Parts: sequence; structure tokens; C-alpha cells
Amino acid sequence: MSCTVSGIGLAGFGTVGSGVWKILEEHGGLIESRSQGAAAMEIRKIAVRDLSKKRDGNAPTDLFTTNLMDVVDDPSIDIVVELIGGTDAAFELVAAALKAGKPVVTGNKALLAERGAELFSLSRENNAPIHFEAAVAGGIPIIKAVQESLMGNRIESIAGIINGTSNYILQRMTEAGLGYPEALKEAKELGYAEADETLDVNGWDAAHKAILLGSLAHGFLIDYKDVYVRGIEKVTPLDIKFASDLGYVVKLLSLVIARNDGGIEIRTQPSFLSKTHILASVHGVFNAVAVRGDHLGESLFYGRGAGQGPTASSVVSDLVEATRNSRSDRGFLPYREAGKLVAIDDTATSYYVRFSVTDRPGVIAEIATVLAKHQIGISGTHSPVDADHPDADFVEMVFLLHTCPFGKLKIALAEVENLDCLTDRPVVFRIETL
Amino acid sequence: MSCTVSGIGLAGFGTVGSGVWKILEEHGGLIESRSQGAAAMEIRKIAVRDLSKKRDGNAPTDLFTTNLMDVVDDPSIDIVVELIGGTDAAFELVAAALKAGKPVVTGNKALLAERGAELFSLSRENNAPIHFEAAVAGGIPIIKAVQESLMGNRIESIAGIINGTSNYILQRMTEAGLGYPEALKEAKELGYAEADETLDVNGWDAAHKAILLGSLAHGFLIDYKDVYVRGIEKVTPLDIKFASDLGYVVKLLSLVIARNDGGIEIRTQPSFLSKTHILASVHGVFNAVAVRGDHLGESLFYGRGAGQGPTASSVVSDLVEATRNSRSDRGFLPYREAGKLVAIDDTATSYYVRFSVTDRPGVIAEIATVLAKHQIGISGTHSPVDADHPDADFVEMVFLLHTCPFGKLKIALAEVENLDCLTDRPVVFRIETL
Repeated sequence: MSCTVSGIGLAGFGTVGSGVWKILEEHGGLIESRSQGAAAMEIRKIAVRDLSKKRDGNAPTDLFTTNLMDVVDDPSIDIVVELIGGTDAAFELVAAALKAGKPVVTGNKALLAERGAELFSLSRENNAPIHFEAAVAGGIPIIKAVQESLMGNRIESIAGIINGTSNYILQRMTEAGLGYPEALKEAKELGYAEADETLDVNGWDAAHKAILLGSLAHGFLIDYKDVYVRGIEKVTPLDIKFASDLGYVVKLLSLVIARNDGGIEIRTQPSFLSKTHILASVHGVFNAVAVRGDHLGESLFYGRGAGQGPTASSVVSDLVEATRNSRSDRGFLPYREAGKLVAIDDTATSYYVRFSVTDRPGVIAEIATVLAKHQIGISGTHSPVDADHPDADFVEMVFLLHTCPFGKLKIALAEVENLDCLTDRPVVFRIETL
Repeated sequence: MSCTVSGIGLAGFGTVGSGVWKILEEHGGLIESRSQGAAAMEIRKIAVRDLSKKRDGNAPTDLFTTNLMDVVDDPSIDIVVELIGGTDAAFELVAAALKAGKPVVTGNKALLAERGAELFSLSRENNAPIHFEAAVAGGIPIIKAVQESLMGNRIESIAGIINGTSNYILQRMTEAGLGYPEALKEAKELGYAEADETLDVNGWDAAHKAILLGSLAHGFLIDYKDVYVRGIEKVTPLDIKFASDLGYVVKLLSLVIARNDGGIEIRTQPSFLSKTHILASVHGVFNAVAVRGDHLGESLFYGRGAGQGPTASSVVSDLVEATRNSRSDRGFLPYREAGKLVAIDDTATSYYVRFSVTDRPGVIAEIATVLAKHQIGISGTHSPVDADHPDADFVEMVFLLHTCPFGKLKIALAEVENLDCLTDRPVVFRIETL
């Protein structure tokens, strides 16, 4: 039993940083008791950009500094917590901490997903682990699950709803029939979307998290430039309505799938998911990650994906880990030179395709002929007719297509687009069966 | 990076034991790679009762022994895995391993829930941790979640569906209207219930798990003799039907609730749960545990609660933990002398009470009068009438009662039982709101 107090340097004191302060103040004693003294810790420096800014929490003013490197250089600091975000200053800070042999705790998914190769390598060279539970799905301990609990499993698939903002917006579009701009506005008013919502709605926040999960699961760093990412900005209430008619919900799904041929599929995009799938019930800003291991079978982890309490809770859990004995075999450990990512054109699912067409005889035949020429099977159609006006024009025609590679579908659709009956580009959603 | 191979002694080679063998054989290399060699391990002795029994898996015969203590005494063994079940020989084995300073991995919930005080104390004295992820909810890493991920949280509540056999039986009674004996028979035929189903259906299997979770969450060993436990044997299709009419499902729920007054409520019993609660959707033999932390908020862990793959997967994950550096601050660490358990009579919920009565005027008034005398409020009633025969006798009368302490309800019901209109004892279910 060790009773040394670990010195913590905190870079960033916004929502999450002040949450960490609060938890340590409120439960520091509990944490010490639970660890029999081994995880005693004290925040000894807090780096912020602007000293004059009003702060949440009652941290003594003499802890604050505007010099970011103070939280690394101070000799009384054993562990560095990076909560400033971004990929430049944060990179410098984390790299300096690792070079000084100090373990790092971070919630910065963009940093690790985009510059992880350099940082994880520094981590190993200096035997200083990077803990990043807070970077993926806030309070859900999914990093620990993938990295530790599934140790004895080939991880067959990871399917996550890991961006609460997108999930909230899609849910409101589904429930209330709102358009995307109205649902986004509502999310902002409720504090579920940030002032700059870009990374949340364009899919990259979720994709960064999926990159980290996939890298952990498969032992090589997935290059973010090779990942297929689409956001929810162009999802329409019409497609959500048609999805519902057909038994589906539209969710921003992040998938990492290990194929039997050794290839890894990774993609983040709004997708159709059966209403009966457990992930279809993940509502509002909650996150969930379903993981399938070859021995474990299906499991699901569900909880709050963001917010002060949940994210700070993960930071504190990582801090406790960081206070423990030397952990040279923790953190991200590559065990493959490089895995084979499957090009998006070679990934196959079934599809929902909506065609906007001029209402004249022959339209269905023309489109179906092109699909048939490319050997793409049609498993169903959906073009609801107004029961009271069966002769009214229909101009939206949905085909459900049998499983085929995405590349093949793209070629066929390019040819369909040349037909003069089309009034707009086809809208495509994957139907994921998981 | 360490490249020592840890020697494993395996006591028991049934479903789970042979599953551990299989995983190490199939994924031993993967585990070594993932841990950069640190978690290399080798099974060096397997103790079984009967050498002549046909075994699953291809373990070499020279590893087998009928002398249980060989898996502790063999000097090449560093970690002992106990999978023999029961609380006598298993106790001797685990105690001997701990005294020899060898970490133990076990899936034996009964052993730890009933004799944990002695074993955890031996564990601390000898600085040899006990790992028991496999003891609670098979493949769900709920021990790790409670013990590590929630480190910075006061754990406000734990609510689990943690006996798959009971959950399957209740589901079949709900879906197919089966009686308890028929549903049990079906569960046995499908291999979802053991030949001796006693501990599964009488609630004790779930209660043992809840005792372990509660002890971890609150820092003192909960004495199993103080825990209120009821099984599903007496649940009737009628009450399940009425539950459904009223918007509820009947689930065998295990609860550990931290009250604001410092008291801990712990109970396992079939209970009413709103159909809209996330735990209501846990079907078949799946398990789920919902945990609420004061900072984390709600989270849920879902997966397979039993079976070879999931349980062996947890054993292997624990083995990896056990191969890591000295872990004197892991395992169950008591940090309270004793917590205050709330007597079951002092725990308050709302209730469903069904009275079987003779059909004569005055019956409702008589019962309601007794309840009123005891200041127990009625929030609703349910006595469905056959629409085609509104004058038919009704003899089952359900009252939904406002929240009151269970002890108070018992006193009132004892008085109701004295009424000559009752033809049977009242049937009571708690309505848990969580």
C-alpha cells in the first residue's frame, strides 16, 4: 500500500476540467479509501488561456497559470491532464509530458485519431501511458471494455451511436417531423449542440471515436484519411418517414467490422437500422456501443456520451489508473504493422435508394432496367399513394436493393442519373443489419 | 516489457474450464501480442474429480490430476483459477492459493458472497488479489465498471437482471402465457436451466451477485444473511397478465440502493417494472445491469450472463489482469467497518396487491377500510370484467397502493387476511421505479 500523493497538472478548466476539480474535491477521500491510499492525488497546477475569466468551482487562484508548459514542467506534477482540445497546442503539451515520462490523461479524440501515431510512439519510448477513456463516449467505459475485457476475443464488430448531438437531431426529426435546420436550432437552444456544430453533424466527432476503438480492437493505428465519413446535414424528414414506413430508423452509425478475409471495414454515416435492433432504442443525447467478440458474443454499453459529470468521471477513473504501478503494457499497443482497410467501394450492404422522378409512364421500367443491367437486385419498392387520391402524381420512388458492393451501386446510379426522368440526384442510405 | 510466461493452475474443467482452455489455445498468441508479451500464460495443471470422464477440448492428459491441491502446490503455477463451484472444497483451494501468495481467478459467486470475509481478508494479508469478473453476469465487465470506472462516483443505485434462467422463464410466461412449471420445463429442454434449478429460480444466484456488486460499491462486505431474497417459483401467469394490462413487466430484479440517509437497501425479488424502462427490454437469457453514479449519471451494461464463451472470456480477461504487476490495491478493499443495511420492513415502494375474494357485496369496502385504517393509500384498482358478461363474478381484485414501508403493508395485510371474504393469501409485488 502506497500513500504517496500524486501531483496532477490540469490543462484546461472548462466544463470537463472544472468537473474533474469538483469530483476530486467531493470524492477525493472516497477515492483514497477505495484504493487504500494508493490513488491519493492533488491538482497542483491549472493552465488556462485567460486568468480573468470567471470560473466554475473554487480552485485557489494561485494554482492557475497561463503558461501551458507549467503543467508539465512543475516537478511536483506526476500526471498531466490535457483538456484544452484542438490538435496543435494540445499535441505540444502531450508530447512534452510523455517526453518527461509523465503519464497523460486526455479526452481529446481528434488529437489521438489524427496525431496518435506520433504520440503513442512517444508513449512507448518513454514508458508513459496515455489514458483516454474520456475521449470516446463520455462516461461509458468502452476503452477499458475493448482493451481489457475483450482481451481474449477476436473483436468481430463494433457498432456505435457515439455522437449525442446527431442522435438528438435525428430523433427530433423522427418524432416531430422537424427539418434538419429546425432540429439543429432546437438542439442548440437546449445546449445539446455547440455554437460551432460542424464536427458533430458532419460525422467527424463520431469517426474520430470509431478510429480509436478500431485501432484498439485491431492492433494498428487506422489512418483517418482512409475512413469513410458522412454527416447528417442532408438527411430529410421524407427519408426518415419512409424509413419508418419500412420498419427502420435513421441513426448516425459508426461501424468497425472485421471481415473473415482479414479486412477491416470502418465507416460513419447515417444509416437505416431495424426498429427492433437494440441500438434503435438509444434516444436523445445518450450513446451506446455494441461490441461482438467471438467468445463473448454480443454486448452493449450504454450511457451519457458527453457532459461535465460523465466525462469528468472518466477522466478521474483514468487518473486512478495513472496513479497505479508502472503500466508499460497499457495504453495503445500496436501489434500489427498495418491492417488491411477495406475500400468503401468494396463494402457491401443492402440499400435504400430514393429517386425523384417526373411522373410519366415508363419511369420505373427505365430505372429498373439500368439496375438489372448491372445485376443489382430489387428486394422491394416503396412509393406510398395517397389513399384518397390514387391518381395523384408520385414523384418519389424508393427501391430497396439487395446486397452489393457500394462501388457497383455507384456505377449503376451514375448511369441512372443520365436518364432524363430524374429530377434530382438519387438519395442513398445503407441498410445495416449488424 | 516482461516476457515471463505465467503458469496457470486450473481447478475444474467443465463448461467454463474447457472454454478457458479453448480461448488460450485459439487466442494465446493474440493475447501475448496485445500485451506485448506481458500476459503470456500457460495452463500447467488441471484438477478434475474423474480422470476417465470424456473432456471437451484437447488438453494433454499429463496436465490432469485428481488432487485439487496440485494446482496450488505446483511451483510452476503462478495463478490459480477456481471453477469447481460449491463453498467447501473451493474455499480450501482458494484459501490455500492465497496463503501461498498466488492470485486467484474465480467465477464462484456463492463462495465469495458467503465466505468472502475470510477470503478477502486472506487476500489482503498475503497481497494476492482475487479476481472475480466471471462471478457476476458472465461476459459483462460489471465488476471492472463498478470497481474502476465508477471510482470517482458515489454509486447511487445498481439494478440488475442477473439471472438468465429466471428471465427466460418469466419471458416465456409473459409471451406465451405458460405456467411456471411449463416454462421451467422448456428452459431445461433448451439448456437454459440446469438439472437442479434451485439456486436460479429461488433468487439466490442473483442475490449472490448483487451482494458482490453492493459490497464493491459501498466498501463493506454485505452479510448474505441480511439480504431479502425471493424467487420466481410462485409467480403466476395471472399476475403477469395483470402486470401487462397495467403497463408493467414482471422481472427478477436485484437492487442495491444507496439512500440519502446513508442506509443501503439490497433486495432480489420478482418485481413490477414499467414496460418503458430500459431493463424491461432485456430478453431471454441476457443479463443487464443499470448503474447510476452521482457524476456519471445512468449507464447500462448488457450482454450474455452465462455460457461457455462469455464466462470463459471474463476468466481470461481476469487472468491477464492477474499477470500484470503487483496489484495490492485491487480486488475487494473494505473501506467501511460496516455499512448500515436497511431492514426490508423499512424499505418503501408502491405495490401491486391481488386479493382473491368471494364475490359478494361489501368486499371492496371491507378491504379498503382496513387499508385506510393503516393510512395506506390506493392509487388504482384493476379487476377486469368480461365485456360480454358484465355480471359474471369477479374474484380477483387488484389494488395498486401508494408508496409505504413494507412493514406497514405487512401489518395491514395481516389484518385483511382475517376478513372472511378472502379465499387465499394476498399476492404482493413491489412496483420499482428505479
